[in-house]
Amino acid sequence: MDRLPGFRDFYPAPAPTADGWTADARQYLFDNWREVARRYGFREYDGPPLESLELFTTKSGDEIVGQLYNFNDKGERAVALRPEMTPTLARMVAAAERHYRKPMKWFALPQLFRYERQQKGRLREHFQFNADIFGESSPGADAELIALLIDSLRSLKLTAADFRIRLSSRNAWHDFFVQRCPVTDREYDFYQVIDKLEREAPENSEAKLRALGFSLEEVRGFIQAAQPTAELARILDDLAARGLADYVTIDYGVIRGLAYYTGPVFEAFDRSGAFRAIAGGGRYDQLVKLISGGRIDLPGLGFGMGDVVLTELLRARKLFPGFEPRIDLFCLIENENLRLESLTLVHQLREAGLIVEFPLAPTKSDKQFKRALELKAAHTLRLEAMPDATRTVLVKNLESREEFRCPATDAVARLVQHRREHPRGPTR
Amino acid sequence: MDRLPGFRDFYPAPAPTADGWTADARQYLFDNWREVARRYGFREYDGPPLESLELFTTKSGDEIVGQLYNFNDKGERAVALRPEMTPTLARMVAAAERHYRKPMKWFALPQLFRYERQQKGRLREHFQFNADIFGESSPGADAELIALLIDSLRSLKLTAADFRIRLSSRNAWHDFFVQRCPVTDREYDFYQVIDKLEREAPENSEAKLRALGFSLEEVRGFIQAAQPTAELARILDDLAARGLADYVTIDYGVIRGLAYYTGPVFEAFDRSGAFRAIAGGGRYDQLVKLISGGRIDLPGLGFGMGDVVLTELLRARKLFPGFEPRIDLFCLIENENLRLESLTLVHQLREAGLIVEFPLAPTKSDKQFKRALELKAAHTLRLEAMPDATRTVLVKNLESREEFRCPATDAVARLVQHRREHPRGPTR
Repeated sequence: MDRLPGFRDFYPAPAPTADGWTADARQYLFDNWREVARRYGFREYDGPPLESLELFTTKSGDEIVGQLYNFNDKGERAVALRPEMTPTLARMVAAAERHYRKPMKWFALPQLFRYERQQKGRLREHFQFNADIFGESSPGADAELIALLIDSLRSLKLTAADFRIRLSSRNAWHDFFVQRCPVTDREYDFYQVIDKLEREAPENSEAKLRALGFSLEEVRGFIQAAQPTAELARILDDLAARGLADYVTIDYGVIRGLAYYTGPVFEAFDRSGAFRAIAGGGRYDQLVKLISGGRIDLPGLGFGMGDVVLTELLRARKLFPGFEPRIDLFCLIENENLRLESLTLVHQLREAGLIVEFPLAPTKSDKQFKRALELKAAHTLRLEAMPDATRTVLVKNLESREEFRCPATDAVARLVQHRREHPRGPTR
Repeated sequence: MDRLPGFRDFYPAPAPTADGWTADARQYLFDNWREVARRYGFREYDGPPLESLELFTTKSGDEIVGQLYNFNDKGERAVALRPEMTPTLARMVAAAERHYRKPMKWFALPQLFRYERQQKGRLREHFQFNADIFGESSPGADAELIALLIDSLRSLKLTAADFRIRLSSRNAWHDFFVQRCPVTDREYDFYQVIDKLEREAPENSEAKLRALGFSLEEVRGFIQAAQPTAELARILDDLAARGLADYVTIDYGVIRGLAYYTGPVFEAFDRSGAFRAIAGGGRYDQLVKLISGGRIDLPGLGFGMGDVVLTELLRARKLFPGFEPRIDLFCLIENENLRLESLTLVHQLREAGLIVEFPLAPTKSDKQFKRALELKAAHTLRLEAMPDATRTVLVKNLESREEFRCPATDAVARLVQHRREHPRGPTR
């Protein structure tokens, strides 16, 4: 029985499977995302992975259903596995925003699901770092969100040489559009053409733009000029003050496909161009209103960063730390008469916070030592019965091969101190 | 648009909804579970929340389908949201066990789904701490697993006065059965009666036992005698050596409903008897063989601990720490001319690991200060322009009301040092 196509197993590292996914690498991303979000004062939330189908069609239209894991549950409810977090978030915010002071800065690490036609390397689930701000319409909020995005990538040791934020604005494109075209009901069609500009053959874009009353040349000219609007200039100044100017460029080639963006939009790309977008987001000031049926009017903005492209990039740049199992101590039990007393010691050492292993069953001496080496134990430790019936402990540093002996009663304090002086690295 | 019945939203604390679920309390459980599992040398894994329906029916029979979220996906595969982790784990272990040295000690924190008839307080999803050991048939492994279970509850500040492990054994019941009944194909029917003994009217149990050739009296006598088998005695000795004797009692009233247990079984209960089981598990030496179609023969054992009952218990005992938002610093920006310079400082402080907030848009002085108090900031900080064009920083401790002024260039070092001397408590 195999797992379903497009889904991943996350094994303990090192990965036994060719795809290389491990729970350790996933947790490394999660820990970093959480840590950076907290430094920025973002609070964690989560919602159900299964929601009413209607929640997603309200936001994205019925055409999204073709890409969903949707079904009728045993109570005949039309339901779907969440393909993105924003509808759930907007639902939660609409239901409870009155209990939170503004601005609200929230983040989540949901698993998301899409039934996409199966292609090489295309998955049907992924995890996403979602961060959003509600209740603040000033560009200071856009800058705060983009700074969080940049710092969450920097925390993974990616630099300005590795990635950049392409910053654009629906407002800039709106101004461009209305100066040239009075027929506003074609504005979203126009955005769709801009969104596909980089992927489509120029003659196709040209034709579509002509039909809307634009030339490809004037569109390209606008993109090339990259003249920041007053709003984008404020965001750039803010990011520059934080020392993050090198990470951002104005790039009107980005417009974001989704209908609900209303202001600044952005995407993060690796500079080599070898990968799909690392992250994307923007301002969506009308979405809470839409989801709450007009009841709540709250400006919002957010981004999503998936784990798949990011993991590919970190692997290519060799930026993941080692995840081999590593333990502090392996307690050798060579004399089975001392098993119970050894267990007492093992328990005390674990209580003190150390990672401790020992043979669960009687095992030959050399096999125990081999196991300690396999587990990359920092030390072995062996309880010894002295002729006067006292107990000592022999501790051996497996790297330096240094040994010391001490009364068993002192062992915990000495080993805890050693660990404090030699903390574990990022390898878990 | 509401969330689906039986599903939970996890809000930032304090919970705005009557059910009280928060992402902070969930993360508190997850952090503790992970920390204890790692001290014990367990490695994390995860699998897909959606699996082939067949994976679950192979292990539990077709009757489980009535309780599943199952459907046909767009590729006409019969699939189901996982109702438990063990089948996924057995699948993963069967596929890759040759890459791991034995014993394998693995844990996971999956979300699980069951379509149960809707009752008050009965949920359709929950999270579970799953820990399992493969490749070790000695009772030392059972003791190690039970010790992990006990310590994961102790890490949440529950004591021997709060909970106990009821330790039993399929082997003890097997011996009891075969001594009295030669018809082994009725053994599992007998286990089912024992499993329901505490919930069923005595006359019903009596009748069912009679039909199998037993009396309720002899069954009760066996339970009351609570005579440990040699295997259970070894487990008790092991746990006693670890100082955990007070947490465990032999209790043959526990037998575990599932068909696949083969040896020691156990459940954790709160001592007041007010809650359902906190956790349960046992040995299942044949399961990997079953899931791998006979290809792999690997003894296994494990437990699952759900987040719902445990959270109810921790709430009742008032053992959750406070989860109010708490930040290290609120940077006041009273002079908008100093906004960009203030942002530089904010960024440096966050880089140094501090949790820092500031007003994203121009805000009145008193509102900024109020916001700092609401966020339970440890300090406020204000950049000041001196007449000689240098910058100083005024730092105010919001608890002691003490203030100090220093050159802006020294501010980061001084505040990092202060934070080191006054670490944050469990409140995040």
